[in-house]
Amino acid sequence: MLDYKLLAALAAVVEQAGFERGAQVLGLSQSAVSQRIKLLEARIGQPVLLRAMPPTPTDVGRRLLNHVQQVRLLERDLQQQVPSLVAEGETQRLRVAVNADSLATWWARAVAEFCASHRVLLELVVEDQEVGLKRMRAGDVAACVCAAERPVSGARSLPLGAMRYRAMASPAFIARHFPDGVSAERIAQVPAIVFGPDDQLQHRYLNALGLSGSFLHHLCPSSEGFVRLTAEGLGWGMVPEPQMTEAMARGELVELLPGRPIDVPLYWHHWRNGGDLLDQLTGHLHRHAGDYLVPLVAAQLP
Amino acid sequence: MLDYKLLAALAAVVEQAGFERGAQVLGLSQSAVSQRIKLLEARIGQPVLLRAMPPTPTDVGRRLLNHVQQVRLLERDLQQQVPSLVAEGETQRLRVAVNADSLATWWARAVAEFCASHRVLLELVVEDQEVGLKRMRAGDVAACVCAAERPVSGARSLPLGAMRYRAMASPAFIARHFPDGVSAERIAQVPAIVFGPDDQLQHRYLNALGLSGSFLHHLCPSSEGFVRLTAEGLGWGMVPEPQMTEAMARGELVELLPGRPIDVPLYWHHWRNGGDLLDQLTGHLHRHAGDYLVPLVAAQLP
Repeated sequence: MLDYKLLAALAAVVEQAGFERGAQVLGLSQSAVSQRIKLLEARIGQPVLLRAMPPTPTDVGRRLLNHVQQVRLLERDLQQQVPSLVAEGETQRLRVAVNADSLATWWARAVAEFCASHRVLLELVVEDQEVGLKRMRAGDVAACVCAAERPVSGARSLPLGAMRYRAMASPAFIARHFPDGVSAERIAQVPAIVFGPDDQLQHRYLNALGLSGSFLHHLCPSSEGFVRLTAEGLGWGMVPEPQMTEAMARGELVELLPGRPIDVPLYWHHWRNGGDLLDQLTGHLHRHAGDYLVPLVAAQLP
Repeated sequence: MLDYKLLAALAAVVEQAGFERGAQVLGLSQSAVSQRIKLLEARIGQPVLLRAMPPTPTDVGRRLLNHVQQVRLLERDLQQQVPSLVAEGETQRLRVAVNADSLATWWARAVAEFCASHRVLLELVVEDQEVGLKRMRAGDVAACVCAAERPVSGARSLPLGAMRYRAMASPAFIARHFPDGVSAERIAQVPAIVFGPDDQLQHRYLNALGLSGSFLHHLCPSSEGFVRLTAEGLGWGMVPEPQMTEAMARGELVELLPGRPIDVPLYWHHWRNGGDLLDQLTGHLHRHAGDYLVPLVAAQLP
């Protein structure tokens, strides 16, 4: 069998994003961890880790991490069958990548009961779209919530529903920039807020209005920060429906042009042989995600 | 003088985290950008970029980026003095790293008026602590809000005030885990929520109660997600005061043990010769940050 002490050192350094923290988690000295990784590389005959900040796995390293992740999930099943393997009261950890808007809205409510009753501790990673899937492929997470449908090799994707976005702005922003009423043409000339380089929602909204080309925008890669900037009148932006209710009730946000939502489908990606706990969480989300998201059949897809 | 076409290519690839996006921003083909960077490396005689995902500057590359950032800030001043240099209606961009809890709470309100009146577009980067300062040192941002006081070389730090955190949990969580009332000893035995490996607040709270050692915790590196997990009863956690008001009013969150806040000082780091716009924003924050934060003199420091 493989030497799992060495593999665990690699996993700890990558997951903790550094040798020092990786060593802390393992209760080892930094030089011991470093030696284990060197030994692993000597045995395989090639580097497993780029010594950058943070340390990054090589292609081979990624394959090893993927394997470690799957072994861990299988160990969880074994612990269910052989409970004496588990120290009393030990809880299970599940590492999941979730897109920022889900984490800021429905995710906690959807999984709260499951985590309490199954004694699960979550290690959440905030990643949108393709990056979450890259983490799956790298074996860095056991599952992922994102807008991409196509599963990575060895995984399945389950449609959860869609997040509905509407173009929102503050009343003061509208009064300042649209003194004669909101017109589609003018929207492309006032500042927008964009989550990050991958966020195409504002582009799509403008395209649907028949507008193309570049537009002024702030960049704000924080879900709550995005809503705050919108409410304070720095720009208009596509806000998830669950996040706008209170701000609308307080009169902080109003819809730019009524009735033009964009629905973004969300999928649950999970390892095919990810173990019982992951299967149970998948079943739980399958039953309950619909309580928080718009049904995909009704979703207005691009 | 240096060839700024080449430097701009380097900056675009690093800031956009990829050759493809860097090329888009510059309106060039990917191969043109790649050639410019190779030419830059040929002239300097050493690599400026590690071709990883995302591309990472070498030490020399970082020094060049730092220089580009400073030149950009000086160009802004020049545009103030020679307005014809600026295309009509052109807005200015300011790239700032802000810690997640500030972005989720006071930041937008504090800068909204300034951005509107100065026609500034913000490019926000969410980074906590040392990472924000690393970005300053790398020349990737012009300024940074974080808890570290010591400025990087060439920059100044201005105390803004402190963010006050309190240990919060949901009433259901307290009923489930503390049926006989909340006791300090038991807090270390129930699940906490921790923002990330750098988040020491929960440790500090337990230490102040005389408890040490490890404790069960979820990891959730999203400010709003953190509050959501807390409100849904997955664990207890240190929540910023401005973020708990509404959840407390709705009865979703209560304080674990009353009267034991932790105040985290926040500093504004900015380049010493960062140009007029940055100086004005610094002055604006100096005058207004106190409206949203606890005064540092009153803050309960560790």
